[in-house]
Amino acid sequence: MGLFRDAGKAYKPAPEVDLGAHSDEFYLHANVKAPRVAGLLVKIFVWILESPILGSIVLYILKKDNLIQRLVSVAEIQEPPLFTATHSNEDISEQSVTPIKPNLSPAERVQEAASCLPPCLDSSFTDSASQFKRWTIRDFFRAYKSGETTPLEVARRFLAAAKETEDPKLHMAFFISYSHEDILRQAEESSRRYHRGTPISMMDGVLVAIKDEIDCMPYPTTGGTRWLHKVRPCIEDASCVKQLRSCGAILVGKTNMHELGAGASGINPHYGATRNPYDINKISGGSSSGSAAAVCAGLCPVALGVDGGGSVRMPAALCGVVGFKPTSGRLSNSGILPLNWTVGMPGILAATVEDALITYAAICDHLPFSQPTFLQPSLNFPLLDSMQSITNIKLAKYGKWFNDSTIDIRNCCDQTLKMLSQHYGWKIVDVTVPEIEEMRLAHYITIGSECTASLAPHLSKLDYAEIGWDARVALSVYGSFSSRDYLNAQRIRNRQMYFHKEIFKRADVIVTPTTGVTAYPLLSDAADTGELDYINGAALVRFSIAGNFLGLPAVTLLVGYDKGGLPIGLQFIGRPWSEATLLHLAFAMQTLCIKSYKRPKVFYDLLKKEQA
Amino acid sequence: MGLFRDAGKAYKPAPEVDLGAHSDEFYLHANVKAPRVAGLLVKIFVWILESPILGSIVLYILKKDNLIQRLVSVAEIQEPPLFTATHSNEDISEQSVTPIKPNLSPAERVQEAASCLPPCLDSSFTDSASQFKRWTIRDFFRAYKSGETTPLEVARRFLAAAKETEDPKLHMAFFISYSHEDILRQAEESSRRYHRGTPISMMDGVLVAIKDEIDCMPYPTTGGTRWLHKVRPCIEDASCVKQLRSCGAILVGKTNMHELGAGASGINPHYGATRNPYDINKISGGSSSGSAAAVCAGLCPVALGVDGGGSVRMPAALCGVVGFKPTSGRLSNSGILPLNWTVGMPGILAATVEDALITYAAICDHLPFSQPTFLQPSLNFPLLDSMQSITNIKLAKYGKWFNDSTIDIRNCCDQTLKMLSQHYGWKIVDVTVPEIEEMRLAHYITIGSECTASLAPHLSKLDYAEIGWDARVALSVYGSFSSRDYLNAQRIRNRQMYFHKEIFKRADVIVTPTTGVTAYPLLSDAADTGELDYINGAALVRFSIAGNFLGLPAVTLLVGYDKGGLPIGLQFIGRPWSEATLLHLAFAMQTLCIKSYKRPKVFYDLLKKEQA
Repeated sequence: MGLFRDAGKAYKPAPEVDLGAHSDEFYLHANVKAPRVAGLLVKIFVWILESPILGSIVLYILKKDNLIQRLVSVAEIQEPPLFTATHSNEDISEQSVTPIKPNLSPAERVQEAASCLPPCLDSSFTDSASQFKRWTIRDFFRAYKSGETTPLEVARRFLAAAKETEDPKLHMAFFISYSHEDILRQAEESSRRYHRGTPISMMDGVLVAIKDEIDCMPYPTTGGTRWLHKVRPCIEDASCVKQLRSCGAILVGKTNMHELGAGASGINPHYGATRNPYDINKISGGSSSGSAAAVCAGLCPVALGVDGGGSVRMPAALCGVVGFKPTSGRLSNSGILPLNWTVGMPGILAATVEDALITYAAICDHLPFSQPTFLQPSLNFPLLDSMQSITNIKLAKYGKWFNDSTIDIRNCCDQTLKMLSQHYGWKIVDVTVPEIEEMRLAHYITIGSECTASLAPHLSKLDYAEIGWDARVALSVYGSFSSRDYLNAQRIRNRQMYFHKEIFKRADVIVTPTTGVTAYPLLSDAADTGELDYINGAALVRFSIAGNFLGLPAVTLLVGYDKGGLPIGLQFIGRPWSEATLLHLAFAMQTLCIKSYKRPKVFYDLLKKEQA
Repeated sequence: MGLFRDAGKAYKPAPEVDLGAHSDEFYLHANVKAPRVAGLLVKIFVWILESPILGSIVLYILKKDNLIQRLVSVAEIQEPPLFTATHSNEDISEQSVTPIKPNLSPAERVQEAASCLPPCLDSSFTDSASQFKRWTIRDFFRAYKSGETTPLEVARRFLAAAKETEDPKLHMAFFISYSHEDILRQAEESSRRYHRGTPISMMDGVLVAIKDEIDCMPYPTTGGTRWLHKVRPCIEDASCVKQLRSCGAILVGKTNMHELGAGASGINPHYGATRNPYDINKISGGSSSGSAAAVCAGLCPVALGVDGGGSVRMPAALCGVVGFKPTSGRLSNSGILPLNWTVGMPGILAATVEDALITYAAICDHLPFSQPTFLQPSLNFPLLDSMQSITNIKLAKYGKWFNDSTIDIRNCCDQTLKMLSQHYGWKIVDVTVPEIEEMRLAHYITIGSECTASLAPHLSKLDYAEIGWDARVALSVYGSFSSRDYLNAQRIRNRQMYFHKEIFKRADVIVTPTTGVTAYPLLSDAADTGELDYINGAALVRFSIAGNFLGLPAVTLLVGYDKGGLPIGLQFIGRPWSEATLLHLAFAMQTLCIKSYKRPKVFYDLLKKEQA
């Protein structure tokens, strides 16, 4: 029973932790002690980890060095475990929201969302030095309705653009699969509807890409692997895809992703490393890499991703688009690969906040339990000239955590907060969010354990050569956790839920940078093996965890660029069920920031206004 | 990743499993391949298990031999995990129940329960060959009110009797601690209240013993160990104790238990093996051994236990008393040792069903979430002459499981069912409850993992010589589970929840023997080391698990005796929140069975009617 002998951190009871600005809680930087490894070294590392005795020893040392041992495995925690991030009927008081009426169809909900939008002030596509605007769902809808263009024309432009991105010069690796035939068929049907004057909704004919972790007919769902679709065939659309389809959206195929979602770089050894449209020598982020990059490159205004540990928000930030993850339980997980059970859910990647709202309205009909009225999904959009319609907004900021990011990121995000404060009178409330790194490790144990339990029966029958090298490293670590690790991780979840609820008594949202680093270089030695870069990995995921581990809604928005011209994201984390408020704040923020938006280097204009 | 290579059972999706009488589901007998071990062999076994490498190998073999590996660890399960046995607001339709009004005090709830009782038909104490009746709370109340005796007299008789049971000739080991001074002080206060004509409730002056896993001032809470009370001091009454105290009950000390609740025999190396009052050479069962045996021996009409895996119902059955475990969440766990989080809760041991009802009413004020009206605890008691007040009762019986018990047990239980059918017209519905053994193993992994996570920080600082030998074996096994084991166990919980809900569509309760064996011999070689008797252990626990793993209410009642004169219990498992129905059925059954009740060999008559 030597396993009980290591000394762990003794946590004080959660209610005794000071959450104020001057708390003496220590901010622990991620204690990652591993150099970046790629190529042959990864293969050697896999060989070590997969050998029975040596592997166990190395894993033990790794977990010890990374403080998993001390902060979770053998820690002294008072709280009982909290096993899910499910929020029940807590009352929330969103200001001036429009609850969606129950029992509406997805198309009717899109209509409701549209009625919340402000009028288009400037519908023209501008790409001057001063302003870069992206086409919105409304722009497509208007162009289709006016006959200016048709869904079929747009689909053809999409296919041409997608082909171009596959050219060896670019090799963007946006998609794992897309079918010309299926896309053109959908586009023809949509065009006919517009021709007849009977579009289904504002989303009719709008292109939407789907992460290859979400079932979407007629494609296999690979999860970024070479094998998962063989043991788990895709037999019908996922719930969220079904709803988009019923709005008339054109589903343009399955986007690339980090293999099994087990990484944040978006480097996939089987389908290529997704490149960042702002700089093709940089990563796109992941795991929803292709969805973020495709939206960034203008191939579609909206894409779906899955967010189990920031997998929507991280690539959104790195590619400079909107990433939106609603409250856990708000969207159905039906038809999503079961890579975990308690942290992941679908999320939306969109070029603009208004398109995130419309898409959210289309797919938000999943109410996991009999909901009181106030848990009905609600929508809220301010008129551009009455941005004070939500007043007294308080943004909680934890300075030490906020500043655990590159100097460009923290300066840019700070600058944005100042603007928000000046323009809208929103207040910054300084707080302490304790045990951030502890939460990251607890989440890692949770997602890893659940991934193992879910996939193990398949893995037992698999030729390991089918699996990418970096994914094999991840699976080795994932499979090494004890039930005590898992239970202690859930006890940390309980503490964090308490901390966050307390903080939300003091402020409406928590504001952070979305990532601690911007897109970093894509090195050629990682192409075949992936790379093990836990330092950058920890920096990417640093601000994402509460969204997943606690099921809180969160949104990221492009607020500026670093010196290298790479996008910087700012994140709002909201109270459970406060999606409407969150999107409202993001919209207000986008209105201020949009002036500085820059055109990505790889960009396609599917409405072709440039030439007009 | 060799750990993924073993072949596990591939479970078919739960909805495809046939739950009917003629299902082809295989009934798997507990595959326990370990001989009984006691004395020196236990010590050697501990030495092996606690040595790092050898221990892991032996544990691996053990788990494989006992099918834990194949049925849980590496099984292929479709369902996601279900982490708790918490039941939310499912509607249940109990017939003719009396919901307890909200916001009553414990004493007022006792009054409500009393008003549900039938009049006492026969209040005289009979101990003829044909009939043995036990004093009830009502009998004590009447005797105190009439001045026939006083709480102080009864308390003195209790202390004399308790002392007698400690005599080396008997060495019953009922209690771990009780304080003359504290008991007499409570009794004096109660006597004064009766003298003034102001008893607090019907429970005023009634003796109640408390399992030493539940906080009760002024005693330490040992959990049957020599150390736990030193690292976790008892600083106030547990919630259920507080409520009993507020009803005027006299708390007569802390009863013996299996160390850490980690066994079902009730053999405790530190405080003695609790003996069975029906035969002092037999075990009492456990882990709430002292509570069951003390009630059996007449030392108190009621005692509290804790039931994490049958720990109230098994000793109740072996000692021939009522054991009642309400729905998970119905009683507060506050002040109970946190030996697990998702399976354990307080339970009631009582001499009669009516006393179980009164005690339940006293302590049932814990409503874990905002409850709709129908989840208010309800009471229900029929008049003896209108037993048909609940009609159309259907009892689900799974023959193969039911019959996995000794011939005396199954004959006696079958006989009882026939009586119930004849007298009340209740119907037997033949069903199949699938995967019983799988559920037992999944529960074992769950309770073991949670016990480890909860206790490990204490254990890391402990001199292991403080721990009993058999408990050290248990802790070694408990600490060996992986997070995948734990998660797969929760997936089996999800399947079983589904199966049971389906079965409850066909019947009101599930009926089983309470245990597969009656009290077995207490052998002297087990006194110091405990014993490892997994065959008897599996037989004892065979029918208990759904009550804990699925949080279902359950009650066991004495229905007869085996050829050796040892008690046989029959168990009803009910729908969530159906305590009133369950107690009603048990009361109806007791009315039929009470004629055959026999006096235990060790028995004390604290009301002294015998001499009257």
